[in-house]
Amino acid sequence: MNSNSNTTGSGTALLRRANCQAVLTALRDHSGIGRREIARLTGLSFPTVCRVINELVGNGTVTEIGAVNLRGARRKTALLDIDPNGGWVVALDIGGSRIRAAAMDLSGKLRESIEIPMENVQGEGSIVPAIQAALDGIMQAAKGLNGEPKVVGVSSSGMVDAQTGIVKLSFNLQLRDFPIARVISDMCHLPTVVRHDVAASTLAEAKLGQGRESTDFAYITVGVGVGAGLVMGGQMSELPTDAEFGLMLVAPDGDLERFGGRGYLESISSGRSIAAVARREIQAGAKSLMNELSAAGPAFITAKEVAMAAGMGDDLARTILARAANYLGIGIVNLAHVLGLNLFVVGGGVSMSGDAFWGPLRAAVERYEYWPGRIRVEPSVLGKDAAILGAGMLALDKTIETLA
Amino acid sequence: MNSNSNTTGSGTALLRRANCQAVLTALRDHSGIGRREIARLTGLSFPTVCRVINELVGNGTVTEIGAVNLRGARRKTALLDIDPNGGWVVALDIGGSRIRAAAMDLSGKLRESIEIPMENVQGEGSIVPAIQAALDGIMQAAKGLNGEPKVVGVSSSGMVDAQTGIVKLSFNLQLRDFPIARVISDMCHLPTVVRHDVAASTLAEAKLGQGRESTDFAYITVGVGVGAGLVMGGQMSELPTDAEFGLMLVAPDGDLERFGGRGYLESISSGRSIAAVARREIQAGAKSLMNELSAAGPAFITAKEVAMAAGMGDDLARTILARAANYLGIGIVNLAHVLGLNLFVVGGGVSMSGDAFWGPLRAAVERYEYWPGRIRVEPSVLGKDAAILGAGMLALDKTIETLA
Repeated sequence: MNSNSNTTGSGTALLRRANCQAVLTALRDHSGIGRREIARLTGLSFPTVCRVINELVGNGTVTEIGAVNLRGARRKTALLDIDPNGGWVVALDIGGSRIRAAAMDLSGKLRESIEIPMENVQGEGSIVPAIQAALDGIMQAAKGLNGEPKVVGVSSSGMVDAQTGIVKLSFNLQLRDFPIARVISDMCHLPTVVRHDVAASTLAEAKLGQGRESTDFAYITVGVGVGAGLVMGGQMSELPTDAEFGLMLVAPDGDLERFGGRGYLESISSGRSIAAVARREIQAGAKSLMNELSAAGPAFITAKEVAMAAGMGDDLARTILARAANYLGIGIVNLAHVLGLNLFVVGGGVSMSGDAFWGPLRAAVERYEYWPGRIRVEPSVLGKDAAILGAGMLALDKTIETLA
Repeated sequence: MNSNSNTTGSGTALLRRANCQAVLTALRDHSGIGRREIARLTGLSFPTVCRVINELVGNGTVTEIGAVNLRGARRKTALLDIDPNGGWVVALDIGGSRIRAAAMDLSGKLRESIEIPMENVQGEGSIVPAIQAALDGIMQAAKGLNGEPKVVGVSSSGMVDAQTGIVKLSFNLQLRDFPIARVISDMCHLPTVVRHDVAASTLAEAKLGQGRESTDFAYITVGVGVGAGLVMGGQMSELPTDAEFGLMLVAPDGDLERFGGRGYLESISSGRSIAAVARREIQAGAKSLMNELSAAGPAFITAKEVAMAAGMGDDLARTILARAANYLGIGIVNLAHVLGLNLFVVGGGVSMSGDAFWGPLRAAVERYEYWPGRIRVEPSVLGKDAAILGAGMLALDKTIETLA
């Protein structure tokens, strides 16, 4: 990225673009910095940074947000930032039961967001209209923003091939080989990038969340399912689409839920499995607050009712959550040992179950880790926003490519 | 690596060296090829390849091994190869109970090899003289080879930091922060590179063994301990030094061997644990052929006696091996699921235990894998030579840097 002496035509254009991209990335990651700081962060020369900044200020992408006297300097240093009003992108998060859509400005802030519920999704026939409704809805909600969106970033559940923009398989959405990127870009005539929702959440966690200070960590999500994204050496690990942390076998002697009795992590620690165990116990006559919390009857208990009852001290709910958390702890210790990772950021709905979940999780990690005290397990601070923030960051990265 | 228009002095030297290295690497990986094929493999222009080859033939590194009429060509094509007599390197494999040393020629063939047993190793005080003896021994044995060796490649057990050339910790060798690369290069005044023995074996497996046709696989070793090396996207994964596949927890309910009752893979499937279980059973009075096979008494039974007895149909030995293999299968399935890997090459002493090991291993993989028939588990074809071959390849890579 350093300036060099290559002066052929196409080389210069490529270099200009790479330099521009480096400056914009530095500004996105550290807002409110001066030209010298940008030069330090990017490794570009000061004159190169000044030239690039002039260009970006000229086309409205970058703006001066103030000026300060740095220690010992006689002249004021202008502090720069990406102009939040310089443009915006669309972020979509496609889950099993709803689509969220958001407008993110170029500084990475969510400015508007809407949610479209999807009940009884039955493959392409119902997902395509839902996506269209989400796009229409966010365009309407974002009318106050400046101009047209530049890129659509999508986070989707299922097995997602980011390269080709295809959802290869999704049980929840009942999709197989669904070319989601093409479908969306045909709808709105915008460049569209797509990633698996766990990968998108990991990206958000790395840039904005608990992973911000770390070059090596795993993001673990425990919601309907269980998944993991890896950041190693400061890079997102691009694992094959069929890599599934949730299929780690933690109880070889089996579990009664799903998977033909094989005790995969997902068959024990996922929200779906927590709910299934609770329903089974209550239908077998166990006494529990969960019964009262589910107005529609025990057949409709979800992991949310289990967490609520556990918070109120219900023994059965606490036991069920503790078991799920214990096995998740084993899965985390295994990932830590096998890959040499020490920081785990845990998100997803089940992770919001409070002490009844976090107590047994931390106890399991402490019990099973080999090097005492080395593994740190922290709750995600992005909560339910991780995936859509990640989808937005993906779109911003793509936008920077376009602007540069 | 393509030739470009950069014409500054140091740039040309760097480029010359990079081109030279590319040509040598192509010749090492595909021996007996012509200049046009080298151009195709490296992406270099034909004139560049010819210039580099002239230089390498001139200094004795590359030689013509013959000439053929390729289909349709009027002139014969000279087939080139690295001259096996153009030089050699030293490979050292430092294990818990012996040091192997070998002389590898530039074509990657082991020409001489010796072994120094180490009994009662007690830290640096005894390992340093043993290394000196191994170096002296191989220099003596390789007297017939042309000239002096160029580089020393070392594969070592323990936690090895390849960057700094330090064995950070080894229980077997009783070492802590031992600067092995510096010690060896002080002894013989040669550049010295060092890697963990599992990483070295993985490299050998990738270049010469079962992984040759695969860009993604894991090499699993089951010897005294249990370890794994990963190749993903054609690259060796550089995991942190404290990444330990053997510390995957496969039996959370515990195991009586070591580790305070926690059922790590290594506490069940390693040769050490197999031997410990056999000794315990026999000392408790179990009848088994193993008793007769160990002349020194049941306290001296090793995994080798267990394998021999199992091969002779001994029930106890078969049960013990089957249990070790079953849990290794679980560990392999977990790695396959979490990283999306499908090929596993299994080496190390325990892997040479025949059907009594491979039958239960394959059955476990089949039983526990999620996508039926996807995971392939194959025996290493390099056997006991994997680590020393890998050490030699490391040294060759370094030599190519030096020659180029």
